[in-house]
Amino acid sequence: MTVNFALLGAGRIGRVHAKAVGSNPDAKLVAVADAFPAAAQSFAAQYGAEVRTIDEIEAARDIHAVIICTPTDTHADLIERFARAGKAIFCEKPVDLDIARVKACIDVVKETDAKLMVGFNRRFDPHFMAVKQAIDDGRIGKVEMITITSRDPGPPPLDYISRSGGIFRDMTIHDFDMARFLLDGEAIASVSAHAAVLVDPAIGAAGDYDSVTVILETVTGRQVVISNSRRATYGYDQRIEVHGSLGSASAENQRPISIEVATAEGYTRPPLHDFFMTRYIEAYANEIAGFIAAIESGALISPSGEDGMLALQLADAALESVRTGRRIILA
Amino acid sequence: MTVNFALLGAGRIGRVHAKAVGSNPDAKLVAVADAFPAAAQSFAAQYGAEVRTIDEIEAARDIHAVIICTPTDTHADLIERFARAGKAIFCEKPVDLDIARVKACIDVVKETDAKLMVGFNRRFDPHFMAVKQAIDDGRIGKVEMITITSRDPGPPPLDYISRSGGIFRDMTIHDFDMARFLLDGEAIASVSAHAAVLVDPAIGAAGDYDSVTVILETVTGRQVVISNSRRATYGYDQRIEVHGSLGSASAENQRPISIEVATAEGYTRPPLHDFFMTRYIEAYANEIAGFIAAIESGALISPSGEDGMLALQLADAALESVRTGRRIILA
Amino acid sequence: MTVNFALLGAGRIGRVHAKAVGSNPDAKLVAVADAFPAAAQSFAAQYGAEVRTIDEIEAARDIHAVIICTPTDTHADLIERFARAGKAIFCEKPVDLDIARVKACIDVVKETDAKLMVGFNRRFDPHFMAVKQAIDDGRIGKVEMITITSRDPGPPPLDYISRSGGIFRDMTIHDFDMARFLLDGEAIASVSAHAAVLVDPAIGAAGDYDSVTVILETVTGRQVVISNSRRATYGYDQRIEVHGSLGSASAENQRPISIEVATAEGYTRPPLHDFFMTRYIEAYANEIAGFIAAIESGALISPSGEDGMLALQLADAALESVRTGRRIILA
Amino acid sequence: MTVNFALLGAGRIGRVHAKAVGSNPDAKLVAVADAFPAAAQSFAAQYGAEVRTIDEIEAARDIHAVIICTPTDTHADLIERFARAGKAIFCEKPVDLDIARVKACIDVVKETDAKLMVGFNRRFDPHFMAVKQAIDDGRIGKVEMITITSRDPGPPPLDYISRSGGIFRDMTIHDFDMARFLLDGEAIASVSAHAAVLVDPAIGAAGDYDSVTVILETVTGRQVVISNSRRATYGYDQRIEVHGSLGSASAENQRPISIEVATAEGYTRPPLHDFFMTRYIEAYANEIAGFIAAIESGALISPSGEDGMLALQLADAALESVRTGRRIILA
Repeated sequence: MTVNFALLGAGRIGRVHAKAVGSNPDAKLVAVADAFPAAAQSFAAQYGAEVRTIDEIEAARDIHAVIICTPTDTHADLIERFARAGKAIFCEKPVDLDIARVKACIDVVKETDAKLMVGFNRRFDPHFMAVKQAIDDGRIGKVEMITITSRDPGPPPLDYISRSGGIFRDMTIHDFDMARFLLDGEAIASVSAHAAVLVDPAIGAAGDYDSVTVILETVTGRQVVISNSRRATYGYDQRIEVHGSLGSASAENQRPISIEVATAEGYTRPPLHDFFMTRYIEAYANEIAGFIAAIESGALISPSGEDGMLALQLADAALESVRTGRRIILA
Repeated sequence: MTVNFALLGAGRIGRVHAKAVGSNPDAKLVAVADAFPAAAQSFAAQYGAEVRTIDEIEAARDIHAVIICTPTDTHADLIERFARAGKAIFCEKPVDLDIARVKACIDVVKETDAKLMVGFNRRFDPHFMAVKQAIDDGRIGKVEMITITSRDPGPPPLDYISRSGGIFRDMTIHDFDMARFLLDGEAIASVSAHAAVLVDPAIGAAGDYDSVTVILETVTGRQVVISNSRRATYGYDQRIEVHGSLGSASAENQRPISIEVATAEGYTRPPLHDFFMTRYIEAYANEIAGFIAAIESGALISPSGEDGMLALQLADAALESVRTGRRIILA
Repeated sequence: MTVNFALLGAGRIGRVHAKAVGSNPDAKLVAVADAFPAAAQSFAAQYGAEVRTIDEIEAARDIHAVIICTPTDTHADLIERFARAGKAIFCEKPVDLDIARVKACIDVVKETDAKLMVGFNRRFDPHFMAVKQAIDDGRIGKVEMITITSRDPGPPPLDYISRSGGIFRDMTIHDFDMARFLLDGEAIASVSAHAAVLVDPAIGAAGDYDSVTVILETVTGRQVVISNSRRATYGYDQRIEVHGSLGSASAENQRPISIEVATAEGYTRPPLHDFFMTRYIEAYANEIAGFIAAIESGALISPSGEDGMLALQLADAALESVRTGRRIILA
Repeated sequence: MTVNFALLGAGRIGRVHAKAVGSNPDAKLVAVADAFPAAAQSFAAQYGAEVRTIDEIEAARDIHAVIICTPTDTHADLIERFARAGKAIFCEKPVDLDIARVKACIDVVKETDAKLMVGFNRRFDPHFMAVKQAIDDGRIGKVEMITITSRDPGPPPLDYISRSGGIFRDMTIHDFDMARFLLDGEAIASVSAHAAVLVDPAIGAAGDYDSVTVILETVTGRQVVISNSRRATYGYDQRIEVHGSLGSASAENQRPISIEVATAEGYTRPPLHDFFMTRYIEAYANEIAGFIAAIESGALISPSGEDGMLALQLADAALESVRTGRRIILA
């Protein structure tokens, strides 16, 4: 069976997903919709797809699945529409910045028994997957302490920051999901977060933070540290380390060029990837491939809408912790 | 301008090049030829190309360039035909296993002023390119000593070995070209080679070697060591180290998964790539992109047919060195 | 001038310091005292020193400095005695487990204008010193976030745990001092600690924890994460990473043997040092050398008694944070 | 039993060995001899030894072993004298620069049944020992190809070069011995060497080379590559890699400080050790400890005088290979 896709939103990340669909022998990009018809037209031409409206896609018999890459504030509505229309749905994170809206949306997904995957692409990074596999294989024993380091090469534009929901909902949310993934779903008991404006005062003026540290503690006392900064001069710093009773597993940083030059000044290797799209190029491809495979096999979809909701709850708790100076108890 | 391509030979490496052409916005795959029509048909369908005969491609007005991925013994004839037909030509290495045949072919290329690129893909590997760039940037001063390590995960099938021309012409030839690339064309003065059968006696029975060490010395006394083995249990071992007057530049091995697991037994990282096609996936894409760019810009093509010939001369000299137990003087 | 030393306490760590004194051309070990005369005698013989009582050492005219390696509960008393006797004092950490006792002791040191160095040996580790130097040289800009990982190969004997003052005062205290060292003394505003018993329930039964995470926040919002475990199967895990506005500096783990073995299973390096005395062998030597140099030059001694007190305050705050579930505000 | 030592030659390397003897509980430095009495006196004072003449040492009943660190041209004579005097002998390499003289000396050692260790200190480097152990443990299967890289930070003084016997007898000789050590004594069938003056023309004017590559081939076809340069701006470059049927074992370079600083320019680690005495500090200590242990246990001493002779034969063959442009057949 070929899974026929419609792409909603013909922007930067839409291009990544369109390519993943286009190169998958089990899938076909049939339709593209965008508020800017020219953008949609460009994609459609490249992949032999049609430009259609969202209404047309909703009503189409020849479309099995949609990929939602539209602005965040449209996600929840679109998920609900396409859940009711019986389409499988891949939606970029977040479902919504408001937890109540997310819950309502997830309820619709459950009622309609819709297939929904939320775009936590890092679960599909081959290196992070290998860390998870090392855990699952028992190589490091029982997981006890996790350290997740996630630093951007530089801050996003200020206008993005102001509508991002803040660093915890925009950036740390990936790490919250990663923590949950690595902990195999064990409940988080408390969230303790520290945040500061160390990179750019304008970020503070916009009501956000740029440097945060979060500790999650599970109900059995396992500890997760997340360290985020909006600036890392040396590139896109993305590391995971899991310490267990029998050992430790870690995913190292990735660089596009791995040479080493030795001189009297020392040994130098080039900086890391400087952009999340090149760093996670394999993750994005694996993600859509996983979505297609799950549609075909009928397997449970992961990360699910509920995973999206639970990560957002942690983000909200972290923000509350910073604002109140208190540890937030969740369970 | 769009460069229209015909692919000759719809096998494994043909698929790699077809993909590179297909995903290049400046190029289009127009025709595919193969002795097995079904193979050609499969490629043609995927890329919206037509199945044509070689005669048709030779005569076609809508085709600017050909990619030759047919068996080795057809390369030289095809290069000559398409040189005379005025097509730009990309040909997988080697041009031929016989140096006289190669020279005759290169003569035709010169007479017809044809554009010919020979598929020494490693020149396009981003890591090796970065080593070359470090040299060109003067970071390590004057190049003095080069070490090239190249080991396959395991030997090829015996029937391949018997028609490969032997390890020097089949495997080491890449390293000879790499040496020439890194030396910026300085003439090789002598070749001294040692060869043994250490991996599999059947390789020796087939008249070939599986473990070789070669020293090239340039006219100014610079030294290159090439170390080859047909077996490396830990994966596809491909390293370059260049030692110069101001320092050293090296390209490290590549692995698909870069995690590290620490236990009481130590720190373990996964093996390297186990296949040249995954190891050099970027090199293959860069190679065809470079070919297309050179066609469009009219730039000199590199590696050229002459590069192919000179590498083969080194391979022949290495074999003669092993057979005679003598250093072969070239310049 | 030669600095004449007396060693108080001829145990394991005393041996390390005696050797440092013995091999320093500016110092001489003159006397050794121990509750067990045989132990003192063995040291004395090896270094050409005399066995003396503490009273004799206190009264001796030929002794300029003492090294206190006796049990923790004798430290404060001995510091006070030798401060009053006008000797320079090196004392193993901690000064005392009780902060009030430490303060009283430090007061005596101040009154008597005594020279006191507290044995935070890690400040003298060449790798950690190089990280500090990179900061001081401005290579990474303004320090923003620090991550200190410190894990023991295995827990100490249970009877040691019961008199250790608990993990924060015994183990984390080194990391508190390291944080202060790397922050160049900027005041800590808050301490937030999480602790669990994940390694051995017997440690919990003894009233202690074995796995802790601490966040320190400075008055300007800089963040320090300390991660401790009493068990690391792969060796003595001691890492520091400092993230700044211009880059990052990190000290890697040390292993006694640095080979790599590559097989079909992957690339394996041996485990880390399995004992703090081999891991920090250079730090111990540098520490005593620094003490001798400071005595000779009259320079300020660092780490000082006050450094010892401030690290203990952080340990006490961490323990209070765990017990109350609250962030402890210090400034 | 305590082994009583006399040290002949109170220079730089003598100091290293005196320290090794002095800190070994099973050994005692009893006498020191040197052409410059002041030098001998300084050592004697430090270790509680006496200054004696060589004649006195030869006749002494209280001396069991001598360490010969005098100039090279005295080695063979001293070995013979002390062999006849019944002392165990540790002699710095080389026994002599002339192979006939070495053979004669070794004959005397055999006749007198003397214990003689030749100072190939690298056999005692813990990292190289671990590579050997990995081989002996069967972890990499049958050894097939060995690569030894050995580069000095900079050339020695010209007057040293002129009396060194040349780079093969002075520098490469360590690598010849290492090759023999790793090959477990398998006979070398041929030596093929290339040499050039790339670092400093004055070295060439002195009749020597500064950049050499040597291939050794064993009687079963195993291949060893040795790469030497008299200059490596990045430090003392000392690496070994052994490729076998089941995998590969390699010893990495050593650096005194192992931090990494990441900035926009990349990731930089400090240079390597810049001096052989710090790089091989553990090897020198292990070497003397091994000598003492062999004396006490009566075990066979390794590396023996014959090892010294065989390494020199390889050096002579390499030089002949360079001079004749031919491969030198040894077996």
